[in-house]
This record gives sequence, C-alpha cells and structure tokens, in this order.
Amino acid sequence: MITLSSDFGSPYPGAMRGVLLQSTDARLVDVSHSFPRQDVRGTAFWLKQILPYFPPAVHLVVVDPGVGTDRPAIVVRAGEHALVGPDNGVLVPVAREFADEFEVFRVAESESADDDAGPGTRRVPWPPDPASTTFHGRDVFAPGAAHVHEAGIDAFEADEAFEPTDEYEEFPFPEPTVREGYISGTVLVVDDFGNVITNVPGDAVEDRMGGRVEVNTVRAPVRRTYDEVDPGRRVVTVGSHGNVELAANHGRGDKTFGVGVDDTVKLTW
Amino acid sequence: MITLSSDFGSPYPGAMRGVLLQSTDARLVDVSHSFPRQDVRGTAFWLKQILPYFPPAVHLVVVDPGVGTDRPAIVVRAGEHALVGPDNGVLVPVAREFADEFEVFRVAESESADDDAGPGTRRVPWPPDPASTTFHGRDVFAPGAAHVHEAGIDAFEADEAFEPTDEYEEFPFPEPTVREGYISGTVLVVDDFGNVITNVPGDAVEDRMGGRVEVNTVRAPVRRTYDEVDPGRRVVTVGSHGNVELAANHGRGDKTFGVGVDDTVKLTW
Amino acid sequence: MITLSSDFGSPYPGAMRGVLLQSTDARLVDVSHSFPRQDVRGTAFWLKQILPYFPPAVHLVVVDPGVGTDRPAIVVRAGEHALVGPDNGVLVPVAREFADEFEVFRVAESESADDDAGPGTRRVPWPPDPASTTFHGRDVFAPGAAHVHEAGIDAFEADEAFEPTDEYEEFPFPEPTVREGYISGTVLVVDDFGNVITNVPGDAVEDRMGGRVEVNTVRAPVRRTYDEVDPGRRVVTVGSHGNVELAANHGRGDKTFGVGVDDTVKLTW
Repeated sequence: MITLSSDFGSPYPGAMRGVLLQSTDARLVDVSHSFPRQDVRGTAFWLKQILPYFPPAVHLVVVDPGVGTDRPAIVVRAGEHALVGPDNGVLVPVAREFADEFEVFRVAESESADDDAGPGTRRVPWPPDPASTTFHGRDVFAPGAAHVHEAGIDAFEADEAFEPTDEYEEFPFPEPTVREGYISGTVLVVDDFGNVITNVPGDAVEDRMGGRVEVNTVRAPVRRTYDEVDPGRRVVTVGSHGNVELAANHGRGDKTFGVGVDDTVKLTW
Repeated sequence: MITLSSDFGSPYPGAMRGVLLQSTDARLVDVSHSFPRQDVRGTAFWLKQILPYFPPAVHLVVVDPGVGTDRPAIVVRAGEHALVGPDNGVLVPVAREFADEFEVFRVAESESADDDAGPGTRRVPWPPDPASTTFHGRDVFAPGAAHVHEAGIDAFEADEAFEPTDEYEEFPFPEPTVREGYISGTVLVVDDFGNVITNVPGDAVEDRMGGRVEVNTVRAPVRRTYDEVDPGRRVVTVGSHGNVELAANHGRGDKTFGVGVDDTVKLTW
Repeated sequence: MITLSSDFGSPYPGAMRGVLLQSTDARLVDVSHSFPRQDVRGTAFWLKQILPYFPPAVHLVVVDPGVGTDRPAIVVRAGEHALVGPDNGVLVPVAREFADEFEVFRVAESESADDDAGPGTRRVPWPPDPASTTFHGRDVFAPGAAHVHEAGIDAFEADEAFEPTDEYEEFPFPEPTVREGYISGTVLVVDDFGNVITNVPGDAVEDRMGGRVEVNTVRAPVRRTYDEVDPGRRVVTVGSHGNVELAANHGRGDKTFGVGVDDTVKLTW
C-alpha cells in the first residue's frame, strides 16, 4: 500500500499516480492533496493526526516549498511504515508517532540522460535527476516511493540509491506558553469547516468544561461538543486531535473568533 | 466494495480510509467528499441519484450536523446494498431506491478504554465509544462499515453490535405545490456547474418543450439540451435526475435565474 | 486499468465510477476531475502532459461543452493506450504523444428502452442512447470505457458498437509568433499554484537563463527554479512541461504578472 499526500490540488497528483503505477501494482490511497499549501508545519500536524490510522504502508508526501533547491529527498523508516518526501521536517512528527526510533536515508541523485526518445510511455530515470526538473513529486518522490514499496519497507536499503544519514531537518512545533492564569498558543491549522486547531493541549481546558474562558478579547463557553451551544455561537472545545479547538456550532470558528493560521491564541481564566 | 460519501472536504476522509484499511481489503471507492456541507436533504438527494448506479456495496455516508449529540449510528440493509451512517434521514431516500423494503440496525455503543498505548498504528475500539470523540466518521461509521463488509451484507447482524430497530429518522423531501396554471417547488441543490436542481418533476414541463415558461418573475425557454439556447442564455430543462433544472448554456443557472438552495421556484404558464 | 479525467468537480464522477464498476473489475485511477471547466484546449494540454506517464490503460475523458448536441462519442486507439471521450479534439494531442499513428472509432447509438423497472441497481443500456440523456459521462462514455477495457485495447472493435472512422475533430494549439527580438504566445492554463503556462517553448528563454526578459510591460528575471528569486518576486522559468512559465516564488504568477488563460504573453529582449 502506498498513500499519497500533497498540497498539489489538481491535476499534478495524476502524474504521480501514473509514475507509481508504471513500477508497482500496490494499492494507492489518497490521504489528501489539499494539505495547506507550502506549509510544512500545518501538513506535519495533519500527517501526525491521520497517518497513524493506516496499516503499515509507504507514505509519499510532497509539500515542498524548497523544490528546485538542493534540499535532499529522504526516506524515513519508522516501525512498520516508510515515509518518502523532502528533507524539510514534514516527515518527522509523524515518524515519532510511528516509532520511538527511526532511520533516515537520502535518495541518491544521478545525471540521467533524458530518455525522451519518441512517442509512448514516458519513463522517469532511477536514481532520479533532480537538477533536470521542477516537479520532484513526479520525478523524484514518486519513483522513490515505488522503489521502497517494491523492495519492501524492511529491505529497501539494499538499493544503493538509498544512503543512510544522521542529518535531517526537524521542524519543531511551537510550544504554548503556560503562565499563572493563562496559556498562550498558536493556530496550527484551520480545517475546511473553519475549526481553528491550536497547539494548546486539551488538558488545559478539561477542568473548565461547562464553564467559560477568555480567548484573546472575547469570552466563550467551553463545551465537549459543538451542539452544546446555539447554532452560530462560538465554542471552545477539544478536537479529535486532542488539542484546544475554536469552533462555532453550524458555523466557522475562524470567522467568529477572528483568527487564522499562525495567529496567537491567548486563553485566560 | 465500500463507497465513501461525506461533506468533509479534506483531509478528514484520509483518516477514514486508514481505519477502513486496518480492517478490510475491500475496494474503496469515493463517491464524493464535497456533498453539501451539513445539508442532510441535499446529500440525500445526491445519494438517491448516484448510489443506484453502483453494484452491490457497503456505502459509508457521513453528513452529520448532529455529531456529538446522541443521535444513533445506523446500518440500513436495502436489497443487496448496505448503508452505514448517522440516523438523521440521509440514508432513507436512497434505501427506497435500492428496495421497496429495508431493515434498520442501530450500532451499539461501548465505553472502551482508550488504547493510546504508545507509538504505532492507532486502533479504534469496537463497538465504538461515541462519547469519547467528535470525529464519528473515523471512530464510529468507518469501523461500522468495515465490520458490515467483513461479515457480509447478508450476515452482519450476527455481530451483536448491530441491533435491529423500527425507529429511525425520515427526512421527507418537500413536495411541490401543483395548481391550475402553476407549480411551486423548491431548490434542492445547485451543482458545481451552477445548474439549479428543483423538486419539480420533469413531467411538469414535458409538454412545454420548445415553448416558454415563467420562472418566478422571468421568462425562459424550455429545451431538451443546454445547447438549444445561445451561450450565456438561461434555459429550463429536465436534468439527468428527472427533475426540472434551471441552467444557462455555458453559464451558471444560479446566477442567471438568481436562485439558490432552499429558494422557492414558481413555474407559471 | 481505467483512468478518469473530467471537469465535473463533484459529485458526478461518483456516478461514473458506479457505472464502470457494474461492468468491470478494472483498477480505477483518477487523473483529475478539476480540469479547466468546459475548456477543451486547456484539458488537452494537461492530458498531453500527464497521461504519457501512465502504463497502458483505457483513459476516460469527459470535458464536453457540446453535451446534448450530436457530436459523436469516440474511442482513439494510440499505441498501447485507448482514449474514450467526446469528438471535440480533446483526445488528439495526447494520442499523438502515445503514438505517431492512431485509429479513431465512433460509438454507435441506439434507442434503448429505459429499463427503469423498479428499485435496485440502475443499468445503462449498451449501445448507449445519447438522445435520452444530458449526462453522457455516465450514460455514454463510462459504459464505452468499460466495454473497451473488457474487450481489450487490441480487440474492442469486434464489438459492432465501435465503428472505424477517418473523420474526427482536431483542436490545434495556437502557435507562438516568433519575430526578431520577441516571441508572442498565449496562456494555455493556470495551475492551482497560480503558475501561468504558455505555449512558448522553453528553448526561447534557455540562453537567457540568469538574465532578464520583458513580459508584456514588466521586466522579470529568467531563472531555472522559483527559489532563485526572493519570496513574492516574479520569475520566468521553464516548467516541467517544457514551456515558458510565469511564476512567483511562494506566490501566484497570475497575480504578479496580471495575466490569465487566453491572454497574450509577449516576451521581448
């Protein structure tokens, strides 16, 4: 099984699917191609929430604001899973969910002749030639994921194109500031429903369930579910991800609270 | 085969796919994850139009404005199909398309210990514990659909988690008002092209094909296809669903007719 | 393998998947359902870029502004691939990528009785009855693709519903105008990132890499990758498709250059 995650929208994921299917009969499963665009932190958050629900798989991840620079392509082996994507930190938080320890491999580069030799199926070279391309999803990461899948998560390093390394990027999530009487956090992502997901752990509001809290300059009830407030009214809750979430019953939390990605959220009581 | 329908957009369907694939090798087929948001009636309309084109399958449906309340999760067995989703009426219209008679089962609830016991694949408990979650698509409905599929559409009730019931929500479609000289209906959905789909049966305009009809305050030609009017011009037609549709050739019917979901459409001649 | 391409957005592709799965166990692979709406040229461009990365397959393509008119449904056999869609030119450019020579077949029409004979799975007739429908994706093209797949790309013409023909629509891409000191081209598509893809071949700017060029009335650097300019700054590059692309590093090229689909792009040096 190979899962696909990107910020590509459409139609670029189609080309990645084609390249994968040239080399593998694996089941392909889309996670999403609407991850926050060029947002490593937001995507890392979502992957950490979602991928642990999958059975062992190769996970292809392409959210890559540095495409075209010399940031390497890497494979992370974590427990029974492998992650294939750019070395920009997006793979690390979910790798830690998969296993306490993980291994990182760089994908070697080659200067391959362009085999554009007439009509028919276009083949991408292996090892890949990143210098010749601005579409690494198709030309580097997809063939990488196919090679890992075909060799096996436990055995892919036999392919010399995968070089073990101890150097890789981390992308630490911001930590909330906890003080007497308040917690100050950050908005990590806003989901399609407008729910505002912060980095503040849900524990912070657990003993205020049924009460109220001040969010920046507005007061809001703290409730276990959206439906405990009237339609359209704001509510502070703990999302399925375990973090504090700012929402509105049958409405958009980002609008009613007036906050978006990267904004500070100060909870006071 | 398990089909997936929701109003989740992205990326929540990814988590449902993961949970399903933990428990089943079934083919997963997306119907859509862009059903009208929190709109039970609109989604029920679309499911009624689309799901009958599928071979026998388990259909997972999550359009659930009442998530977090105590509305039950149900399974509907209708002919060779099973539908799994919330008991809010969204499953009933399509069930009637599948079969004249159908059976309804409630999914039992349990208070399961959270098995968040360290890194690795996250498992959702069965029977599910709705009280512990705001993401019933992942934690209740997806495991329900996987259990129905693995046990078989004809045999799943052997699992004690499925309890037969005669109580379930209906969600009646509004009926158009037919009078001498006019019909007054309601807009059920607007599709991505801007075509306005009403609850008025196509028969109402069949004998006016080639003529004209007044729609609220504007007159418009009644034609069999969009292309029988000039580009940009409004047209009243009968859609592939059999209902009266307000459209514009190479344009948007909702804009040219000035109507949207829930609006009244009065056809006069 | 059957790939699916359309401009349907949602939820109509769900019905096509159902119809296909009534007749075939083939793997279904979405290319995209967000191709430029009712834009034959833009879709033809994308298909030409993407489908050659697929292994041999039947490709179902539904971008069909003439639905409901008498434009035929066709099958194009090109090398090891088959394309099924409307005869409006959308299939031809990618067919030439697949093979120097290709064959075209028309899908015969029939007047089938509507088998709407009560509840259960809805079956679409074969050969199809285009006159009875405004949803040819579901009622004509999807059953056509399933029939081609089941009979085999090399053998489907044994089905009398497929009639060889020498008449089919071409949809020529506009050619750029090359003069001393400038090239004048056209914007073919704008991708989801806002990158503006022109019909000007990348060769035109290859020997200006590292320099500058005038795009309509603004000057912009020519670089190999987006990251060679500061965030937000405009850049002229050669995309993964081989054509000149107008982009902005971490921004939208269409906004910063002020151009959109069909606009003229004049490059002067």
